[in-house]
Amino acid sequence: MAIITLTTDFASADAYVGAMKGVILSINPQAIIVDLCHSVAAQNVVEGAFLLGTAFPFFPRDTIHVVVVDPGVGSSRQAVLLTTPSSRFLAPDNGVLSYVLEELLGPMEPAASVDAETLSPYAPRGLTLTPRKLTQDLHAVVLTNAHYWLPTVSTTFHGRDVFAPVAAHLSLGTPPCQFGQPLDRLLAFPIPRPTATEQGLMGQVLHIDGFGNVITNIKESDLLGGPSVFLVAGQRITGLSTAYAAGGSLLALVGSSGYVEVAARNGSAAHRLGVQVGDAVTVLTQG
Amino acid sequence: MAIITLTTDFASADAYVGAMKGVILSINPQAIIVDLCHSVAAQNVVEGAFLLGTAFPFFPRDTIHVVVVDPGVGSSRQAVLLTTPSSRFLAPDNGVLSYVLEELLGPMEPAASVDAETLSPYAPRGLTLTPRKLTQDLHAVVLTNAHYWLPTVSTTFHGRDVFAPVAAHLSLGTPPCQFGQPLDRLLAFPIPRPTATEQGLMGQVLHIDGFGNVITNIKESDLLGGPSVFLVAGQRITGLSTAYAAGGSLLALVGSSGYVEVAARNGSAAHRLGVQVGDAVTVLTQG
Amino acid sequence: MAIITLTTDFASADAYVGAMKGVILSINPQAIIVDLCHSVAAQNVVEGAFLLGTAFPFFPRDTIHVVVVDPGVGSSRQAVLLTTPSSRFLAPDNGVLSYVLEELLGPMEPAASVDAETLSPYAPRGLTLTPRKLTQDLHAVVLTNAHYWLPTVSTTFHGRDVFAPVAAHLSLGTPPCQFGQPLDRLLAFPIPRPTATEQGLMGQVLHIDGFGNVITNIKESDLLGGPSVFLVAGQRITGLSTAYAAGGSLLALVGSSGYVEVAARNGSAAHRLGVQVGDAVTVLTQG
Repeated sequence: MAIITLTTDFASADAYVGAMKGVILSINPQAIIVDLCHSVAAQNVVEGAFLLGTAFPFFPRDTIHVVVVDPGVGSSRQAVLLTTPSSRFLAPDNGVLSYVLEELLGPMEPAASVDAETLSPYAPRGLTLTPRKLTQDLHAVVLTNAHYWLPTVSTTFHGRDVFAPVAAHLSLGTPPCQFGQPLDRLLAFPIPRPTATEQGLMGQVLHIDGFGNVITNIKESDLLGGPSVFLVAGQRITGLSTAYAAGGSLLALVGSSGYVEVAARNGSAAHRLGVQVGDAVTVLTQG
Repeated sequence: MAIITLTTDFASADAYVGAMKGVILSINPQAIIVDLCHSVAAQNVVEGAFLLGTAFPFFPRDTIHVVVVDPGVGSSRQAVLLTTPSSRFLAPDNGVLSYVLEELLGPMEPAASVDAETLSPYAPRGLTLTPRKLTQDLHAVVLTNAHYWLPTVSTTFHGRDVFAPVAAHLSLGTPPCQFGQPLDRLLAFPIPRPTATEQGLMGQVLHIDGFGNVITNIKESDLLGGPSVFLVAGQRITGLSTAYAAGGSLLALVGSSGYVEVAARNGSAAHRLGVQVGDAVTVLTQG
Repeated sequence: MAIITLTTDFASADAYVGAMKGVILSINPQAIIVDLCHSVAAQNVVEGAFLLGTAFPFFPRDTIHVVVVDPGVGSSRQAVLLTTPSSRFLAPDNGVLSYVLEELLGPMEPAASVDAETLSPYAPRGLTLTPRKLTQDLHAVVLTNAHYWLPTVSTTFHGRDVFAPVAAHLSLGTPPCQFGQPLDRLLAFPIPRPTATEQGLMGQVLHIDGFGNVITNIKESDLLGGPSVFLVAGQRITGLSTAYAAGGSLLALVGSSGYVEVAARNGSAAHRLGVQVGDAVTVLTQG
C-alpha cells in the first residue's frame, strides 16, 4: 500500500490537481491519493507549512506527502525529498517543511552563521530562511535525476512534471538515493514562540481557520496554573472553555492542534475581532 | 470493501478533512473514502441533514456515512452510530440525521410529550429537536467506548479523534455494540411540509443549490392534475418545464431529489428572486 | 484497474458529485474515481472543454473521463460516449469535447456546409457548434440504452442518472456498442487561433487560472526567433521569462499547457490588467 497526500495552493480552480493525479496513477495505478489541503493561500509558504504540520502526524507510516506551494518554481530553488523514520516528504526547499522539521528535530537553534550562498534567492517576501542541519535519521536528497520526471518539464508546473512522477516512483519502492544527491540541511523559518513581557506572555496569531477560529502560537503548557486572561485586539477573554458551545460569545480553548485558539460561538472570531495572522495575543500577568 | 463517506462543514480551508482521512487509513488502509460534501454552511445542521438526505440513497449497501456538522462538539451532546438495513451513519445526535430518519421511518408524528431531559442543551439556535423512536430494524448506540478513539481526544475535533477512528474500526467489522450503549431514540427536527391555505398549497424553500436553483419542499405528488401556477417572491411561474433549457427565464421543474425547484435559464434563480431558505413558495389554487 | 475522472460545473456546493460517486461505486466498487475539476464556471462549456483538454493527456490509457457541463440536460441534446485509442469520454454533445477532438484530430476544417438539423437547439448562448467528422479510430455512440441507466432518470441530473452508471458499466467492460447507436460526428466549436495582423500576431485570452495567470492561445511555436514583445490591456511585456519568480512585476512565459501566459509576480495578472477571457493579446511586429 502506498499513500500519497497532496498539499497545494491550487485551490479548486483549474485541473492542476487532477493532472498531478493522472501522472501519479499512470506510474503507480495502485497509489492511494489523498487531498490533504489545496486551499493554502497562493504562494503562502508559511500557511502551507502550518497546515502540513497539523495533519501529517495523523497519516500511516511511510505516507508520502507532496507539498506544492512553490513561488520559486522554475528558478534555482531546489526540489527535495526528505525521508524520516515515519514519513516521506517531497517539496520545494523553501521553508514549507519548517513545521515538520520542528516537530521531528525540536526547536531550531539560533543560527550562528547563516550560509547565505545556500539560501533561496527566490524566497517569498518577508520570509527569513535558515539552513537547518538534518539529524536523527532524517535524510534529504535534491531532485536532480530527470530519469524519474516527465519527459517534458514545464518551467511553471513542477507539481505535475517533477513531484508527481517522483512520488509515484518512490511509492513503487525506488530508493531515495536514485532521485539525486544527498543534502545535509534544508531551509526553514523559525516558528514564532511566545515571549515573556512585562504585560504577560506575548504570543501571536499563527493561523485563521475556515470557521474564523483564531489559532495562536500559545500551547496549553505555556499557561500558568490559574485561570488565564487572554488579551486579543483589545478584548479580554477569561479562562479556557472546553467546547465551542460552552463559552460566551467569544471564548478561548485548546484547539485540535494543541494551540490555544479564540473562537466565537456560532460565528467567526476573526471577523468579530478584526485580527490577522501575526497579530498579538497576550496571556495577561494577573495580580 | 468498505466505503466511508464524509459530510462536513469544514469547507475546503485547512487540513481538517485530510487529517480525518489520515486517521481512517491508519486503521483501515483498504477503506475507500468518498467526499460526500464539505460545503455545508458552518454549523448549519439543517443544511447538512438535507444534503446527506439527498445523497445517501445512491451509495452501496453498508456504506458508512460520517457526518460532522457539530456545533456542540465537546459539550454534552452525544455522538452516535445508527445502523439501518442499508447503511450506517456516524454523527452527533443533533438532528443532522433527520432526513435519513424521515426517509427510513416516514414522517415524524407530532410529539405528544417531549422528554426535555434528553434534548441537546447545545442545539443550534432556532432548531427544535424531538426524540424520535427507532423502529423497523434501525438501531443506535452512543459512542462511549474510548478504546476505539484516538489516544488523545481534543475537545474541538471529534471528527478526527472519535468519528474517524470509529468509522475505520466499524469498516473492519467491529460490531456496533462494541462502541457503546444502545439508544432507542435519536433527536430529529420536523421536516417542513407544505400546508393547505386559502390561497393554495403553501410550501417553502428547503435549499438553494450551487447554481442558485431554489429547491422547495413541494413534491410532484403534492400537485393537482392541471398545470400548476407557482408564486415565489411575487413572481408567477406557470407549469412544469422538463429541462433547464426548455423554459423561460424563470421556470419550475421537478428536480433531481424529487422536489419542485425554481430555476433561471443560464443564471441563478435565487439571486434573481432574492429568496432565502425558509421563504414561502405557493402553488396557487386556480379558478 | 478502471479509472474514472469527473469534470463538472458543480463547484463544491451540494452533494451532487458525491451522489455520482455513490452510483459509480454501487455498480463497480473497484472503480478508482478522480476529481479532475469541479470548478468549471456554471454552464461554461468552453471553459470545461479547455480544462479537460489540458488534463486528459496525463491520465493512463483507457481512463474514462466523465464531463458534466450540461446546460441542455433534459432537452434534446444528445449524451455521447467517445472512444479513442487512448481514452474514453462520456459527455453531452454540446462542444465540451472540442479540445479533445482538436488534440486528437488536428485543427477543425472550416465547415463547408453545416447540417443545422444535427445542431443542438440548446447550445449555450454565443457558442457556434459545427458537426465534426470522426476519423482515425475515434468512435462515438449516442447513449440511448436505458438498461444501463438508473431505473428512474431525472430531467435535471443526467450526471448521476445516466453518465455515472454508464461510466461504471463501461469500466466493467461493457462494449461501447451496447450503450446506443453509432454516431459519425460530434459537435465542436472552433478553437480560436492567433491571426496575423498589421500590428503583429493577434491572439486572445483563453483562460484565467486560479492564480490569476492569463493564459493565451499563443503557442511558443507561434513566436518568431527574436525576443517577443507582448501587448495586453495596453501594457507591453518584453521577452519570455523562465519562472514566475524570474521576471518583473508582469511577465510572460510558456505555461504548463504550452501556451504563452501572462503572470504577475506574487499576484494576479488578471486583476492587475483587468482582462477577461476573449480579450486580445498581441505579439507585436518589431521594427
